[in-house]
Amino acid sequence: MKVMDDFFSPRSVAIIGASRNPAKVGHVVFRNFIEGPYKGKIYPINPNTPELFGYRCYSSVLHVPGPVDLAVITVPAPLVLPVLEECGKKRIPAAIIISAGFGEIGNHELEAQVVATAKKHHIRFLGPNCFGVVDPATGVDTMFLPRFKIQRPTPGAIAYISQSGATLSVVLDWMGMKGYRISKFISYGNAADIDEADLMAYLADDPATKVICGYFEGVREGRKFFAVAKRISQKKPIVVLKGGQTAQGGQATLSHTGSLAGEARIYDAAFKQAGIIHAANLEQVFDFARVFATQPAPKGDRVQIITDGGGYGVLTTDAVIRNDLRLAQMRPQTVLALQKAMPSHVVIKNPMDLTGDATTERYRLAIEAAVADPGVDMLAVIVLFQVPALTGDVVEVIEEAKSAKPMVVIAGGGKYTETLKKPLEDGGVPTFSYPEQAIASLRALYDFSHR
Amino acid sequence: MKVMDDFFSPRSVAIIGASRNPAKVGHVVFRNFIEGPYKGKIYPINPNTPELFGYRCYSSVLHVPGPVDLAVITVPAPLVLPVLEECGKKRIPAAIIISAGFGEIGNHELEAQVVATAKKHHIRFLGPNCFGVVDPATGVDTMFLPRFKIQRPTPGAIAYISQSGATLSVVLDWMGMKGYRISKFISYGNAADIDEADLMAYLADDPATKVICGYFEGVREGRKFFAVAKRISQKKPIVVLKGGQTAQGGQATLSHTGSLAGEARIYDAAFKQAGIIHAANLEQVFDFARVFATQPAPKGDRVQIITDGGGYGVLTTDAVIRNDLRLAQMRPQTVLALQKAMPSHVVIKNPMDLTGDATTERYRLAIEAAVADPGVDMLAVIVLFQVPALTGDVVEVIEEAKSAKPMVVIAGGGKYTETLKKPLEDGGVPTFSYPEQAIASLRALYDFSHR
Repeated sequence: MKVMDDFFSPRSVAIIGASRNPAKVGHVVFRNFIEGPYKGKIYPINPNTPELFGYRCYSSVLHVPGPVDLAVITVPAPLVLPVLEECGKKRIPAAIIISAGFGEIGNHELEAQVVATAKKHHIRFLGPNCFGVVDPATGVDTMFLPRFKIQRPTPGAIAYISQSGATLSVVLDWMGMKGYRISKFISYGNAADIDEADLMAYLADDPATKVICGYFEGVREGRKFFAVAKRISQKKPIVVLKGGQTAQGGQATLSHTGSLAGEARIYDAAFKQAGIIHAANLEQVFDFARVFATQPAPKGDRVQIITDGGGYGVLTTDAVIRNDLRLAQMRPQTVLALQKAMPSHVVIKNPMDLTGDATTERYRLAIEAAVADPGVDMLAVIVLFQVPALTGDVVEVIEEAKSAKPMVVIAGGGKYTETLKKPLEDGGVPTFSYPEQAIASLRALYDFSHR
Repeated sequence: MKVMDDFFSPRSVAIIGASRNPAKVGHVVFRNFIEGPYKGKIYPINPNTPELFGYRCYSSVLHVPGPVDLAVITVPAPLVLPVLEECGKKRIPAAIIISAGFGEIGNHELEAQVVATAKKHHIRFLGPNCFGVVDPATGVDTMFLPRFKIQRPTPGAIAYISQSGATLSVVLDWMGMKGYRISKFISYGNAADIDEADLMAYLADDPATKVICGYFEGVREGRKFFAVAKRISQKKPIVVLKGGQTAQGGQATLSHTGSLAGEARIYDAAFKQAGIIHAANLEQVFDFARVFATQPAPKGDRVQIITDGGGYGVLTTDAVIRNDLRLAQMRPQTVLALQKAMPSHVVIKNPMDLTGDATTERYRLAIEAAVADPGVDMLAVIVLFQVPALTGDVVEVIEEAKSAKPMVVIAGGGKYTETLKKPLEDGGVPTFSYPEQAIASLRALYDFSHR
């Protein structure tokens, strides 16, 4: 769908309902456009004022001088139809209808009229009742919450689509804080026109997107969704959290998005058949996503653990076995060479315990050996940065060791540790605080490349 | 054991091996004592210098003028025996032997001599090969890592004992950053004298400690440990993470602490019989601990969910059911009163969805109603602080609603959210980013009070 580009890279955008009143959605959306990195033309539309924050304000899109690629509609529900008519006359190809008050509160007739009007004018639209789009690369940002309340992530390779606007906003905020990087965030609300399957199909061909994530309570058209997912999952990983997996949770989705959550087992089977990776919770969606976005496919399931803390090594070993992966066995010559290069109290096994007097140099030797050894498919590197002799440049040693083998870093602690994890995360090495999350992510990576 | 107080509240402490050299353990320990909040007398012991950072330095504890309650021994292993002899002559009742190089590297004979010498002089000791003690209330802090690398938590009700020093230091650091509050942290290393069972028995009678947590790979004397645990768990919750639960993890513990990890199923059964709460991972230890430290015992298993985000409500419902708790049903009169007081689009069910235009006042009404309703045993309050109309004073409304019913807050997001969660956590309301952790903690709380 060529028109889909108009949602993410429009050359011009009209914000219909832009307002001086900070309590209005149209105010926040307009401010986010003019204060953000968006480079295209911005037209505020409001019949009650000739000017807004230095921008000429138009009473209708029909009075806008140039073409408009995207209309963002924030007016109350009863005004959406006439506004959409004008968008049609202006030949605007794409609209994000943020306005609520349609199917989600039982107003199905009005929603059907919106669909018919859009169809008549060949307008494709997201919503109604949605947050719309955040694309940090182009600066399109219709999330109507101010930046002080919701942080915005920087450009990257993770796409996320969500039926639930609030869940999407929380995740956006959290990823912004963590420094995780996104390609596109999309809240599609009632999905009266564009639905999750359309979005997935678009993201499958989007060169910026390496992994597609989603939170769904139900899907609009099961057959279409799973056909699209099956095709896409051949080339890009799809990671999904399904809300309403218990009968009672399913009841709750009825009050929320009106979705029929369906029976958990049926979804489970359908997800599996479609090659969708099923996350157990929101945190896991983005643990998996970060690893998919940055790490190569592993050749096999053998994990080498390197650590400077015995307890963390033990817990990571437990996690490897519980996730049905195997402990790697390095070749005898690798072990001998490491034994020769390291003090005798260093344990050259799996876990390889560099012990509490570990140095950056020991990490360099250990990681390089594991990367080179054909018996190792993946590396789980535990770095307890707190130990006395370890210096901050261990971060560079780890970054430089990036190779054709997946590698994750496990480092728990406070501010000092978080400060050192940041450059790793920025440099494309996923970091975790606890062993379980790291190893479950390696397992997902292995599964995707060995279906 | 009266002597145990000397480890945590000594009136005077001798740091044997105190040094001007920042690379020495004795340097860091001494600096942490003189720069921290410790109020007692501090005697550095080092035969090579008459003065250290303005403190008179003694060549032996025998030359210290007053009595010494606690000796912290940081000298190399071969010097520990003569030093301990002098401690005996000085009638020092308690020692923390930080020095390594004993049983953990096969030097069992030297360790046996240490035990014999201590016994002869009636010295009780922690270690060897340990970090010792952190007690933020008294300022005793023998963790030999500088504060810039490891943050220190403030005084509170959570005690933690760990065989693994590195794991303890990571957890300490992490809790310091999170603002979680501790009574005592104890790393006991080789447990040549005082072991995990002795420590648990002491903490059981410690008025500052409300919950006892631990990381163990094995226990020194199974029979003694489980007998003590069984007695203590009648009055205080014990939350334990067991390292080496898989056969391969058990192998790794042999290289680490030399513990026989034992078969997972046997430990599982013994833990259960002793009333020990078994955590699945490190994070869960402290999720459970925070809830035990602050929340009352619930009367039953019925959870009322209050939310301003439908998706989070659905996920929390799934978590309640998966944790084998029940969704509360409020009385018809409560529901009617709330329906009257709230706009019609608010969903007065379970989850109660205050929706995306939720206000602080709606939270006040909802929480007060759930606290008052006899059909509700526990409250899971989801607050997505990002929604437009919600103001920061919702935090005070939640804090003021503390009652005889356990309450947890689930709030995901970035910096703005973290800023608002901090006063809740400080005020004794446990906060979580995701539903699963919060509900698993309520389940642990319910289990403990309904065995």
